Amino acid sequence: MEYADGKVKDLQIAYIGGGSRGWAWTFMTDLAMDEELSGTIRLYDIDAEAAKHNEIIGNRLSAREDVVGKWNYTVSDSLQSALTGADFIVISILPGTFDEMAVDVHMPERLGIYQSVGDTAGPGGAMRALRTIPMYVEIAQAIRAYAPKAWVINYTNPMSLCVKTLYYVFPEIKAFGCCHEVFGTQKVLKGILEETMGLKDVKREDIQVNVLGINHFTWFDYASYKGIDLFPIYRKYTEEHKEDGYKEADKNWANSTFECAHIVKFDLFRKYGLIAAAGDRHLVEFMPGVGDSYLKDPETVKRWKFGLTTVDWRKKDLQERLAKSARLAAGEEEIELKPTGEEGIQLIKALCGLTRKISNVNIPNTGHQIANLPESAVVETNAVFERDAIRPLYAGELPEQIKELVDPHVANHERILKAAILCDFDLVVEAFLEDPQVKGRASREQVEELVRDMLRSTAKYLPEGWKKYL
Amino acid sequence: MEYADGKVKDLQIAYIGGGSRGWAWTFMTDLAMDEELSGTIRLYDIDAEAAKHNEIIGNRLSAREDVVGKWNYTVSDSLQSALTGADFIVISILPGTFDEMAVDVHMPERLGIYQSVGDTAGPGGAMRALRTIPMYVEIAQAIRAYAPKAWVINYTNPMSLCVKTLYYVFPEIKAFGCCHEVFGTQKVLKGILEETMGLKDVKREDIQVNVLGINHFTWFDYASYKGIDLFPIYRKYTEEHKEDGYKEADKNWANSTFECAHIVKFDLFRKYGLIAAAGDRHLVEFMPGVGDSYLKDPETVKRWKFGLTTVDWRKKDLQERLAKSARLAAGEEEIELKPTGEEGIQLIKALCGLTRKISNVNIPNTGHQIANLPESAVVETNAVFERDAIRPLYAGELPEQIKELVDPHVANHERILKAAILCDFDLVVEAFLEDPQVKGRASREQVEELVRDMLRSTAKYLPEGWKKYL
Amino acid sequence: MEYADGKVKDLQIAYIGGGSRGWAWTFMTDLAMDEELSGTIRLYDIDAEAAKHNEIIGNRLSAREDVVGKWNYTVSDSLQSALTGADFIVISILPGTFDEMAVDVHMPERLGIYQSVGDTAGPGGAMRALRTIPMYVEIAQAIRAYAPKAWVINYTNPMSLCVKTLYYVFPEIKAFGCCHEVFGTQKVLKGILEETMGLKDVKREDIQVNVLGINHFTWFDYASYKGIDLFPIYRKYTEEHKEDGYKEADKNWANSTFECAHIVKFDLFRKYGLIAAAGDRHLVEFMPGVGDSYLKDPETVKRWKFGLTTVDWRKKDLQERLAKSARLAAGEEEIELKPTGEEGIQLIKALCGLTRKISNVNIPNTGHQIANLPESAVVETNAVFERDAIRPLYAGELPEQIKELVDPHVANHERILKAAILCDFDLVVEAFLEDPQVKGRASREQVEELVRDMLRSTAKYLPEGWKKYL
Amino acid sequence: MEYADGKVKDLQIAYIGGGSRGWAWTFMTDLAMDEELSGTIRLYDIDAEAAKHNEIIGNRLSAREDVVGKWNYTVSDSLQSALTGADFIVISILPGTFDEMAVDVHMPERLGIYQSVGDTAGPGGAMRALRTIPMYVEIAQAIRAYAPKAWVINYTNPMSLCVKTLYYVFPEIKAFGCCHEVFGTQKVLKGILEETMGLKDVKREDIQVNVLGINHFTWFDYASYKGIDLFPIYRKYTEEHKEDGYKEADKNWANSTFECAHIVKFDLFRKYGLIAAAGDRHLVEFMPGVGDSYLKDPETVKRWKFGLTTVDWRKKDLQERLAKSARLAAGEEEIELKPTGEEGIQLIKALCGLTRKISNVNIPNTGHQIANLPESAVVETNAVFERDAIRPLYAGELPEQIKELVDPHVANHERILKAAILCDFDLVVEAFLEDPQVKGRASREQVEELVRDMLRSTAKYLPEGWKKYL
Repeated sequence: MEYADGKVKDLQIAYIGGGSRGWAWTFMTDLAMDEELSGTIRLYDIDAEAAKHNEIIGNRLSAREDVVGKWNYTVSDSLQSALTGADFIVISILPGTFDEMAVDVHMPERLGIYQSVGDTAGPGGAMRALRTIPMYVEIAQAIRAYAPKAWVINYTNPMSLCVKTLYYVFPEIKAFGCCHEVFGTQKVLKGILEETMGLKDVKREDIQVNVLGINHFTWFDYASYKGIDLFPIYRKYTEEHKEDGYKEADKNWANSTFECAHIVKFDLFRKYGLIAAAGDRHLVEFMPGVGDSYLKDPETVKRWKFGLTTVDWRKKDLQERLAKSARLAAGEEEIELKPTGEEGIQLIKALCGLTRKISNVNIPNTGHQIANLPESAVVETNAVFERDAIRPLYAGELPEQIKELVDPHVANHERILKAAILCDFDLVVEAFLEDPQVKGRASREQVEELVRDMLRSTAKYLPEGWKKYL
Repeated sequence: MEYADGKVKDLQIAYIGGGSRGWAWTFMTDLAMDEELSGTIRLYDIDAEAAKHNEIIGNRLSAREDVVGKWNYTVSDSLQSALTGADFIVISILPGTFDEMAVDVHMPERLGIYQSVGDTAGPGGAMRALRTIPMYVEIAQAIRAYAPKAWVINYTNPMSLCVKTLYYVFPEIKAFGCCHEVFGTQKVLKGILEETMGLKDVKREDIQVNVLGINHFTWFDYASYKGIDLFPIYRKYTEEHKEDGYKEADKNWANSTFECAHIVKFDLFRKYGLIAAAGDRHLVEFMPGVGDSYLKDPETVKRWKFGLTTVDWRKKDLQERLAKSARLAAGEEEIELKPTGEEGIQLIKALCGLTRKISNVNIPNTGHQIANLPESAVVETNAVFERDAIRPLYAGELPEQIKELVDPHVANHERILKAAILCDFDLVVEAFLEDPQVKGRASREQVEELVRDMLRSTAKYLPEGWKKYL
Repeated sequence: MEYADGKVKDLQIAYIGGGSRGWAWTFMTDLAMDEELSGTIRLYDIDAEAAKHNEIIGNRLSAREDVVGKWNYTVSDSLQSALTGADFIVISILPGTFDEMAVDVHMPERLGIYQSVGDTAGPGGAMRALRTIPMYVEIAQAIRAYAPKAWVINYTNPMSLCVKTLYYVFPEIKAFGCCHEVFGTQKVLKGILEETMGLKDVKREDIQVNVLGINHFTWFDYASYKGIDLFPIYRKYTEEHKEDGYKEADKNWANSTFECAHIVKFDLFRKYGLIAAAGDRHLVEFMPGVGDSYLKDPETVKRWKFGLTTVDWRKKDLQERLAKSARLAAGEEEIELKPTGEEGIQLIKALCGLTRKISNVNIPNTGHQIANLPESAVVETNAVFERDAIRPLYAGELPEQIKELVDPHVANHERILKAAILCDFDLVVEAFLEDPQVKGRASREQVEELVRDMLRSTAKYLPEGWKKYL
Repeated sequence: MEYADGKVKDLQIAYIGGGSRGWAWTFMTDLAMDEELSGTIRLYDIDAEAAKHNEIIGNRLSAREDVVGKWNYTVSDSLQSALTGADFIVISILPGTFDEMAVDVHMPERLGIYQSVGDTAGPGGAMRALRTIPMYVEIAQAIRAYAPKAWVINYTNPMSLCVKTLYYVFPEIKAFGCCHEVFGTQKVLKGILEETMGLKDVKREDIQVNVLGINHFTWFDYASYKGIDLFPIYRKYTEEHKEDGYKEADKNWANSTFECAHIVKFDLFRKYGLIAAAGDRHLVEFMPGVGDSYLKDPETVKRWKFGLTTVDWRKKDLQERLAKSARLAAGEEEIELKPTGEEGIQLIKALCGLTRKISNVNIPNTGHQIANLPESAVVETNAVFERDAIRPLYAGELPEQIKELVDPHVANHERILKAAILCDFDLVVEAFLEDPQVKGRASREQVEELVRDMLRSTAKYLPEGWKKYL
């Protein structure tokens, strides 16, 4: 890469994965609309056809006259060739297929455990992690060997465990995880502010928040818009709308069918005093499964107005995206040049020195950004992004009650990473038993059986070491 | 205070001290040029005439047509009335007079100890602290009683000990210390960048740095301008200019006669690899007094091209400022509306929610912003300023060698605070003996005698408790 | 001091205080019965007559044929002369008189606050601390000046604050606090063990416990006798005796009229799962004063079977001791040579290298002996005593629920030390308001009035600095 | 196990390994001489014949009339059966054979790297760890499954990494590592004390020391005998004997051919001020290999008067032990009932509640027993052993200079554990490059080749995962 006159040329970005298309196109779109960056995108995917399609789509896009950000898209046939010389590495992979995800999400239902997403916490998140971690071990080793100085941006879930694995294998890695859930909650605040104060065109980025927690279970203990404290406004709104929640107008592909009315969020505010900063579908999966669980059964879910995203829907959605991919590659359809609302490109620009930006980020807690979580936890807080540096802001402490909710997940991250690396069945059972969604809802024997059945169903995507248990 | 439409009205600022005029006028000037803030400045000074002069000057300035920032200046006759209802409190006092400062700076010369400033570290800094801390205890108690929620901005030296005292007495205080030395070093970097790269009009604020250390002994381990790493440029420059240093063009009242050629800074870079970020006159006072001391004797000082600011000069300068004060109050002269380069007003605006700003700040290390200094140390690092919040950035660790230089000063801050509060003679002696400028240069007996003589000379400004030693 | 052949000769012990006689005689008795130590006891008391009496009594005792531990008792007329050359320093003073203590204990009754001891926590403990701390500042300064290498044993209450003050003034001090409350609870365990298991002659020292907490509010999370876990035995006993408690046979002067039935202790075990290790009279003063307070009113106290030690009793008891002192000094009565059960002499022997001993001790938490209390807290845990060294054992963590009970007291220790040093009225008010016995039971105004009245009543024993509030 | 009347009956001890006979017989001998313990020893070894031999030898010993400690020895045919129901688990295995050890020790000589032991630090220690860790993963999993409450005593080297692996897999394990090197240094001190002070029959246990460091690289910053400080005595002796060292009289099987003159130890004292507390053969392997290395070449080694234990010697020695084993099993020879000087049995007795004992132990630093090493490091310090509990003593801080020597080894423990679990070639290379014996003495290419060749030579004892590199 080369900086001159406020622009960066010849930037080398390795894009690992992207076969599921969605994120790749978001990324392409944002690149296409930014004239300060240019260079090469090396596409690497174990699904070679997916990479090829993206190459065609990317180059076609770049050739368009209305596109100011000019990039050369090229398929790499190995991790080594994709990484060598890269300035940035973007990782966005799907570990296994939606068939495996169907098991993640739905098999635990036999114990009454319903999952609204199933990719982060809970049995689904754990099982997905067992497939993902070995891939991340390999990717981290490759980065250490071929691109140790590159910045690594992770979009894959389970976010915390992906980032944790990268740092475990290669502690000097310059990696971070990006997630847009916080933006979603900023938009809710923006909407409430506009609705109640009669303001117009409040920018999402101007809703300043202090972020603390772990990915998909993050919290704001501070929210401001210019001179206005948003907490009293939010408090009033949540009291008046505890039943109907908040309805948002704008949507993008990433969350259109993943809606919620935010009344779980409102309820959590009433109980804990902080603003939970992720979609309700994610939040509920971190909460205890006994007592007044938001996920008790489908009727309860309906009452709390969020969706249980079925994997059937995901499969259908994927088909549509593949069809769209074919159309885009064939030139039968064009990518729409509309800002996606993601900050990935902005962060890359900041790391190139073109701007200085404060945004939320998932990295290890080694700067004590959350004072009462262990240093080894991967946490989500704000950080300043500047040329070749990320500096976390001191986010303070989690309130004791919320810390008690977060602690078992942080402990499970340790456990699951260890289980994945050692191929250790008992650790997976322990992780299930300690997961708040499972805890107190099934016997050890039932859980052992569930773990064994889930492992068997996904055995194709697991290392050899698991065979002895299956 | 009241926020509306991007402006803050009716802001109540208590200004404690200011009798020496300089800082007060800087502050007035910056306020006068900012149209987004308005309100009342309550002036409180034990020198009532000084406060009265400032009231007249401030109101005269505010009445001018070319002034957009409108403020009502008013003298408060007690701390209580100044503080009650204040949103912000600015403290800028002179503990004692320049007669006492003459003792601070010059009496230690009898042991061969020369001081270039004498207000922060060294015998002079310690003695000044003994006068200042009791005043700060009283101020902190008053803030706790009358304005516990107000933001407190300290400009008084010794900075670290003033801030430390405020937090010691009232741990929940929202206080921070501002210092412009870092800006000075940013300007040096800006100048070198322009000189060597042919760039023009680089803004000081665009020199992004990572700040770590203690006030007047701060360091950059990172310096960037947009996409450019300034370290290699600085390294080359310091090698080529190790003899002649760097000459800066612009000056303001605060440093015009306080010049240096920055070759101490260049020498420290060669030895320690980081950019020391204060004027050379300050830096040298933190370094060991034995071996190749920069302060060995006046000849050595001359060779290193920085000044020993004599107190005679300060007295003369004060006379001029008092004369100017009279002229300003009488309307015979006008304050010039020129940006001062200070960030105080910017920080107030950020704390009001009007902007978000990253700047260097002196606060306790409770956010672990410097990982390898104790939590109780008052450190200088960058922080994000936003509505009613300061969030320190994680600045990392001091390199081991520099930490060894910083440690004795941090330890002395503890000692001197304790000595001041307990009126403990032996602790002062210990602090002198552990001060790097003194260490190894005098016997305990000599130091005891010096401490006793210095205390006697400044006894008028010390609490009763010291009498038993004098 | 001089070691040879398993004995230590010419040991120099400074004994500060002792005017109240009790502790001094205990100490003399133990010394008299130990043949491995000999030397000089330098008695220093602001009550010169008391010191003189003790000198006569000590030397008379030492001269007896049945006494194997030979010591020379001598009155010192200044701290300096007592301390210079001392190997050990014992401090056991009464800050003020029982008239002041009467105010400590009884004046808060006007707000319904009853105190069973009034010398550690609660309003009485705080007020006593305000008198004691200035004396300890002076003593610590004297030790630093005249005997910096001596071991310092504190017996004065409030224990935590006395030890904290010594370390605050002179961080390198080799000081520790001794308290026999833990022994009392070991004796309860011994008694229960003998009663329920039919064992005989169990030695108190063989009841091995893990001690953690703060003085007078210490806890055992482990108690063993040889191969036997005492927790199930204690659990069973507390269930069967929740009404009648445990009655002990042996008593000594220190607790004869200070009895309790230990049912508060049993109740705390039921609630928190650990064995509280101090007399019930002490324990209750640390617990919340609202809700089911053990100290709600005299009737409640009676129901829980412990005493409210009145100061009238103490005054009468002192008269008796003074009379006894006169008789002892006149040779009309002899000190009885019976082991006192205190470990002070054992600890001195261990520090001389004659034995190695594990015992409970009050020192700052700088060895992280209690992992979840701050380093600056003075904690009570076990430590190994050996030649010239005390090494705390890692005691683990306080359980969360107990930590919540301990935390406000640890915070108040900080506050009260600061209040005493700064003569800061508002900090005392804050300490009262945060004390669990006071919290929620009186308005700030009522507390301010109480603090003012209590300060006034004890003003004679307070520094000048308080005058401005009285 | 069952406690009654000061004895413990029916103790169940699983003994894993022991095929090399030496340690097993030591253990048997100590058990045979202690009348307070009895029970069953379950022998488990992958070398079934070795276990069978030990069974015969053990039972034969137990049947002798002069033996007071009666035990039933029995071979277990699986880890599960050995562990289920065990109260204690002793692990003493040889990872691989002496053929593999020959590679560990001698192959690095091609780069000029001589190793005196080759089982702890250096290339040999690392390679041995790669073979050992997978076995310890399996053992830890088995303990978690079958005997989670048992106490686990490790004797296998590399000690720190064996203990680290056990805690990594099963953090709740009650495991510790025992090593007699500290005793050896206590004996040196005892000998010097007797020699210089004319004392007789000083007991090794009465040499009280404060132990801090990591296994085989431990240090004393304190050594006392009763009232005598041993530091000045040791200092004088090391000055007078810097050439000839100290010659010890008594030897036992474990160190007879492993002698040294302790002049390395004396030299380290001169340089660092603390007493290094392991045999010189171990100490030298932790020190830098460049500069004045004690291991520069065989001539240097000779000058420093310690041995390079060749593996040929070990093989011959093993043959002798196997022959002796046959004779013992056949009843042609009898085990001699002589105290071995090991403390293993004493520690078991303490953990049973029969005594309370202070001894050195290798456990994770989770009690902050060494304040300036990370919590995750396995450190060696003193601890109190009592019924079912080990409580580390606070050992203080390593002096900065020694910490710098220890740090790279602590970092390498992390690296090597990770390398072993991930089968990560590059991490092994990094560990070699960071090992002080290797650092600065070979290129990365040379080290990569050495690592590859060493791995190939020991491939038979490594997991599958390494194949891809070989």
